[in-house]
Amino acid sequence: MQRIKPRTLSGFMELLPADQMKMEAIMEALRRSYARYGFYPLDTPLIEASEILLAKGGGDTEKQIYRFTKGDADLSLRFDLTVPLAKYVALNYGQLAFPFRRFQIGKVYRGERAQRGRFREFYQADIDVIGDGKLDIVNEAEIPAIIYRTFTDLGLSRFTIRVNNRKLLSGFYGMLGLAERSGDIMRTVDKLDKIGAEKLRELLVGEELDLSGEQADEILKFIAIRGTNAEVVAALEGYRGRNEVFDLGLDELECVVRYLGDFGVPEENFAVDLSIARGLDYYTGTVYETTLRDHPEIGSVCSGGRYDNLAGYYTDKLLPGVGISIGLTRLFFVLQEQGMLSDALPTAPADVLVLPMTEDRAFAVRCATALRDAGIRAQLYTEPKKFKAKMSYADKLGFPFAAILGEDEIAQGKLGLKNMKTGEQTLATPEEAVAVVRAALEAQKGVKPIRG
Amino acid sequence: MQRIKPRTLSGFMELLPADQMKMEAIMEALRRSYARYGFYPLDTPLIEASEILLAKGGGDTEKQIYRFTKGDADLSLRFDLTVPLAKYVALNYGQLAFPFRRFQIGKVYRGERAQRGRFREFYQADIDVIGDGKLDIVNEAEIPAIIYRTFTDLGLSRFTIRVNNRKLLSGFYGMLGLAERSGDIMRTVDKLDKIGAEKLRELLVGEELDLSGEQADEILKFIAIRGTNAEVVAALEGYRGRNEVFDLGLDELECVVRYLGDFGVPEENFAVDLSIARGLDYYTGTVYETTLRDHPEIGSVCSGGRYDNLAGYYTDKLLPGVGISIGLTRLFFVLQEQGMLSDALPTAPADVLVLPMTEDRAFAVRCATALRDAGIRAQLYTEPKKFKAKMSYADKLGFPFAAILGEDEIAQGKLGLKNMKTGEQTLATPEEAVAVVRAALEAQKGVKPIRG
Repeated sequence: MQRIKPRTLSGFMELLPADQMKMEAIMEALRRSYARYGFYPLDTPLIEASEILLAKGGGDTEKQIYRFTKGDADLSLRFDLTVPLAKYVALNYGQLAFPFRRFQIGKVYRGERAQRGRFREFYQADIDVIGDGKLDIVNEAEIPAIIYRTFTDLGLSRFTIRVNNRKLLSGFYGMLGLAERSGDIMRTVDKLDKIGAEKLRELLVGEELDLSGEQADEILKFIAIRGTNAEVVAALEGYRGRNEVFDLGLDELECVVRYLGDFGVPEENFAVDLSIARGLDYYTGTVYETTLRDHPEIGSVCSGGRYDNLAGYYTDKLLPGVGISIGLTRLFFVLQEQGMLSDALPTAPADVLVLPMTEDRAFAVRCATALRDAGIRAQLYTEPKKFKAKMSYADKLGFPFAAILGEDEIAQGKLGLKNMKTGEQTLATPEEAVAVVRAALEAQKGVKPIRG
Repeated sequence: MQRIKPRTLSGFMELLPADQMKMEAIMEALRRSYARYGFYPLDTPLIEASEILLAKGGGDTEKQIYRFTKGDADLSLRFDLTVPLAKYVALNYGQLAFPFRRFQIGKVYRGERAQRGRFREFYQADIDVIGDGKLDIVNEAEIPAIIYRTFTDLGLSRFTIRVNNRKLLSGFYGMLGLAERSGDIMRTVDKLDKIGAEKLRELLVGEELDLSGEQADEILKFIAIRGTNAEVVAALEGYRGRNEVFDLGLDELECVVRYLGDFGVPEENFAVDLSIARGLDYYTGTVYETTLRDHPEIGSVCSGGRYDNLAGYYTDKLLPGVGISIGLTRLFFVLQEQGMLSDALPTAPADVLVLPMTEDRAFAVRCATALRDAGIRAQLYTEPKKFKAKMSYADKLGFPFAAILGEDEIAQGKLGLKNMKTGEQTLATPEEAVAVVRAALEAQKGVKPIRG
């Protein structure tokens, strides 16, 4: 037979089993966390009609899209989870109750230039709250509170959710007589982290934006406001009264900061940061970025914000919302690179490896069944290999326990339960074995997938 | 703005929130069940190089495939989870430990003619055990045992896992001097359920197969063997000693039947059925089909079998295995159609809807946070709507509890916990509320997604 060399496409993450277990632990923690805040899980097709996905059109996105025809249908793979959400809400408007809260963890596709750490197929993990016509400001505080709790559950601690408000920014630019151009300016200021203040000033007074030196300095002074959240808010109060949009943005920001405290988010995990704006035009209020304090070079691992009009391309209903997205595949890659995935997380496919040592495997089958009936993950290994090969399999896959079933054990209706870490082996009835394994699992319960 | 009419492609399932909750409950039950038997979760790309996916080539599959180019890459969407598994195991052979046990629940794509109940994007839920060179027969009993347990956990009861053995069949055809043509004959016999015995006989003696009337009658007699599993096996023993392959197949079948008992599978949920063969050539031993006894018209909802050579297109390593696949999207569609999805399954996005009645939502935020910290799913509803609108939202989404927070409650640091089913409302501290909700959740625990 002519053989084809097996390969996986470049830019497509495919993990080995132990790594996949870690990824699953993270995804499961996300699902559990999002569900705890009252979000529906949503699942939409990977493929949509191109006219739907590309309703907005233009931009870098369109070049990167996986677009093809099947029969006479012009199809595209989704490149984010927001456009499918907009379609879904517009399509099912009459059958949904608002606010409509959904989370979605799914793969999206962008044909970016292949590059280490850049993926063409990657998971996004999104949450959004969509209102019908209006949406209360408390939601804008709840979203970062959810991210705080989710990241904490994952095991991260040294992260900062950076919060800003687009109204505040455009109001500020309004004070400088730059209201019309605030979008362009924000997109430039958004680069601060990457290029630094000096280079930013050059861009601001440069040909394209052509601000005066005074305007540029005002902007740099503004985005340099630093301190505790209370100090930043106090400094912002100094600008109050000069622009209505600014004042509204400041009210919103203060409200978000206040409720974040009620949500139990510690000061050290969120920061009002006037330099972030998010590039996208459709954000209209609070915006978020999340950085790992020890790895600022990674950039934001979780971003989003408030928007006024989710689905304007599909419906005349005004659907404001607020949402945030984790770039999960990239985050996982970075955590792996940085050695931040916990080694303490169990990666074996089961808690107990059941090892019959006799030809008749009936007792082993019954033992494995008893363990499983008690909710314990048990794998039955029935290959007729030597003892050493069996134990080496148990070692290699990292099973916490092996249940060894030789003739002696079978005669007594017991199993030789070996703790693979300590090497300790005890003779136990299936019921006793269940208790021992359960206790060990209980002790493992606090283990988080990431070490912060 | 010019609007585009939102739509979802035909043949692509996209569920409303309450239905999606039911689908998630099923997927979660599958994940939990598969994990309990010691299978690694696997995730592979949706897109593969066409030369990889189409290594086998030909057949109906190729016509249905979603194939396209991106740059100079010839790409295809996966049409099952078996080919990607074969690639994965061949590619990572050196890093895997065998037997390699994996489950995968993922979407696959087939551009079938659009038809009600037929999907172009659908979930498969697969389990496979792959050996290195050899694989023990007990695995062939474990696979249907897993399906029994999984279906039972889902709530199904009136289903039959039908088991046969391809060696038994080809050995039998060998007895009739039809060894060379057993593949063609099996594919024809496999149609028995659909066409009936009379029509089958016509096909057997027809132009294409051209069997003698005597041969056809022997075949019909053989596949008509019915009775309890013990009776069928006893009848088969009557054929022993005439063909080596038959005898080997009979040994395997008897072994599978015996161990199925040890695995705790009741007689009523599995049946030796000599009429099933599975169309695919690559099955070489035990084969399975699963039918819902009250809905034979649906056909098999879960099928698979033993194969000797998983990845021959990619590697010279012999990788025998056994696996089974649930066509999940179609199964869900059928269950929905038949009214078999349980109404008792909670479909609200949370257990408690927290309803602040005052402008300051700080206490509500703290209550919601306390509930969530206790592991209870709580949704915070902060829209400034009338009481009636709030309660109607709670009703519509089916929240089991609402926590009503008016000025009186806030003054006492308590919440008005309303059981939405009974209408009963009690004043409770957050801790008391946690206890009440937990008790209700505990009572719900036995609810299964499907009513069998």
